[in-house]
Amino acid sequence: MLKPLGDRVVIRVLEKEEKTASGIFLPDTAKEKPSQGEVVAAGPGKLQDDGKRTALDVKVGDKIIFSKYAGTEVKFEGTDYLIVSERDILAII
Amino acid sequence: MLKPLGDRVVIRVLEKEEKTASGIFLPDTAKEKPSQGEVVAAGPGKLQDDGKRTALDVKVGDKIIFSKYAGTEVKFEGTDYLIVSERDILAII
Amino acid sequence: MLKPLGDRVVIRVLEKEEKTASGIFLPDTAKEKPSQGEVVAAGPGKLQDDGKRTALDVKVGDKIIFSKYAGTEVKFEGTDYLIVSERDILAII
Amino acid sequence: MLKPLGDRVVIRVLEKEEKTASGIFLPDTAKEKPSQGEVVAAGPGKLQDDGKRTALDVKVGDKIIFSKYAGTEVKFEGTDYLIVSERDILAII
Amino acid sequence: MLKPLGDRVVIRVLEKEEKTASGIFLPDTAKEKPSQGEVVAAGPGKLQDDGKRTALDVKVGDKIIFSKYAGTEVKFEGTDYLIVSERDILAII
Amino acid sequence: MLKPLGDRVVIRVLEKEEKTASGIFLPDTAKEKPSQGEVVAAGPGKLQDDGKRTALDVKVGDKIIFSKYAGTEVKFEGTDYLIVSERDILAII
Amino acid sequence: MLKPLGDRVVIRVLEKEEKTASGIFLPDTAKEKPSQGEVVAAGPGKLQDDGKRTALDVKVGDKIIFSKYAGTEVKFEGTDYLIVSERDILAII
Repeated sequence: MLKPLGDRVVIRVLEKEEKTASGIFLPDTAKEKPSQGEVVAAGPGKLQDDGKRTALDVKVGDKIIFSKYAGTEVKFEGTDYLIVSERDILAII
Repeated sequence: MLKPLGDRVVIRVLEKEEKTASGIFLPDTAKEKPSQGEVVAAGPGKLQDDGKRTALDVKVGDKIIFSKYAGTEVKFEGTDYLIVSERDILAII
Repeated sequence: MLKPLGDRVVIRVLEKEEKTASGIFLPDTAKEKPSQGEVVAAGPGKLQDDGKRTALDVKVGDKIIFSKYAGTEVKFEGTDYLIVSERDILAII
Repeated sequence: MLKPLGDRVVIRVLEKEEKTASGIFLPDTAKEKPSQGEVVAAGPGKLQDDGKRTALDVKVGDKIIFSKYAGTEVKFEGTDYLIVSERDILAII
Repeated sequence: MLKPLGDRVVIRVLEKEEKTASGIFLPDTAKEKPSQGEVVAAGPGKLQDDGKRTALDVKVGDKIIFSKYAGTEVKFEGTDYLIVSERDILAII
Repeated sequence: MLKPLGDRVVIRVLEKEEKTASGIFLPDTAKEKPSQGEVVAAGPGKLQDDGKRTALDVKVGDKIIFSKYAGTEVKFEGTDYLIVSERDILAII
Repeated sequence: MLKPLGDRVVIRVLEKEEKTASGIFLPDTAKEKPSQGEVVAAGPGKLQDDGKRTALDVKVGDKIIFSKYAGTEVKFEGTDYLIVSERDILAII
């Protein structure tokens, strides 16, 4: 699997049908804005100058809302993923 | 419900009629500027480098004024919400 | 009343006649620049990372000069106010 | 008198004739650039996060050179002043 | 061989065929975005102000995904390399 | 004389003939870029938050190379000077 | 010789023929990008706020690759040099 570095997280983007099931609808006027996904891999946290890491607030399995314009798309073993920094995650559902 | 991360807050945007009731009117020349809302969920606070969190100054139930251009819109179980950082909140009413 | 957050201050903008009384005149060539107001509410101070607050240098009742382009206008119970950060306040009269 | 906040300083801008007397001439090609003034009020210094203030390097009465484009003009009791941050002051004459 | 400075890493960019073998495919709509490579040399880590170094999270031999627009290309003894900062590396495969 | 503040330095700009004598020639293609000068006054150093000053690396009398676009020109008692920050000084000759 | 300040380094830019000898070739599509040089003088290191210096990672005699767009050109006693900050040096060969 992909192992993200630092405070990065690998997200499986959820399809529209899945969104309906989880009760989230994007308003029509904002349909280009946030997206929903599931965390499938999380980095070890950001390495601080003193050698410690700041733990992430999300963990594998969390359903999240993130800014649609954030991150970098990759396809791995047939599935689309997005790699984003934790600061681009808005909320856990 | 949505659980915002870090210093983010979920806001239910108050409608014009509600604004009249609470006594706030936006001046005509600035009618595109600030908006009013109610905090419905608040993040745990920003995680500092030393692992502590900076507590938020707003809590669930607070009526607030925020910059209209701040935040990201989401619709959750039929209601419009806005997710903003606490720094985009101007004042508590 | 409005309770500003952090280092924000609520200002009642003083009218031209009031300015004359207090002896401040803006030069003709700069008549769009600074403005004068009275502090009607002050935030608790900026929350630092260590959990302490930096006290504000202005208090309720102070007559101040601020940059005209700073802040966000709100109308509350029939009066125009401006919410500005303390760093946009230039001087106390 | 005006009481500047933080590291701000109130300057009385010196006229061309005064400049001649003090021996400073701006080169023709740069006649729009630096200006000369006298400090008439100085702020208490910038408030640091630990609650202390960083003392200013200029004091009332100092003749200074400052960047002409810095600061905000105000007219107080018939005299033109400029409010600038200390970092915009280049040198003491 | 090249010895990168600080938190820089020398990457051998993997060709399309190699990508197929490792199971990564870029989605068609994003085929200009991330790239895959192998770390062939890693810097000693970023030198902090206190004279210590922050160790890198990648080591020689790691297969990585990085932003295609990051880094500087060099050709050394007939092979193309890319020199990137570790912060431009998204994930280890 | 002029007393520069903080990490600023007053420079007497050296003329082309002087440059020839000291052995520095600007390449033709870069003849608009660096300039040469002599330090005639140096500030006390930048005031840190803890009240100490960071000493300057240049002293009065040093011949220096600086970026031509840096600084502010002043004419004082008939001589052209330039006031620059130490960070705009590239090297001592 | 030139004595660079802080973390600056004086580089003698190596000619194309020299590059061939050392085995580095720039790819055709990137022939405007990195350049190769030799360090002929190194600054004492960046002065920190606590009065110590951060030692440089390069020393006189090192062959280096640097970003072509970095630095300032000077000609000294008939030779072209470039003065760059250490952070613009990508790798030691």
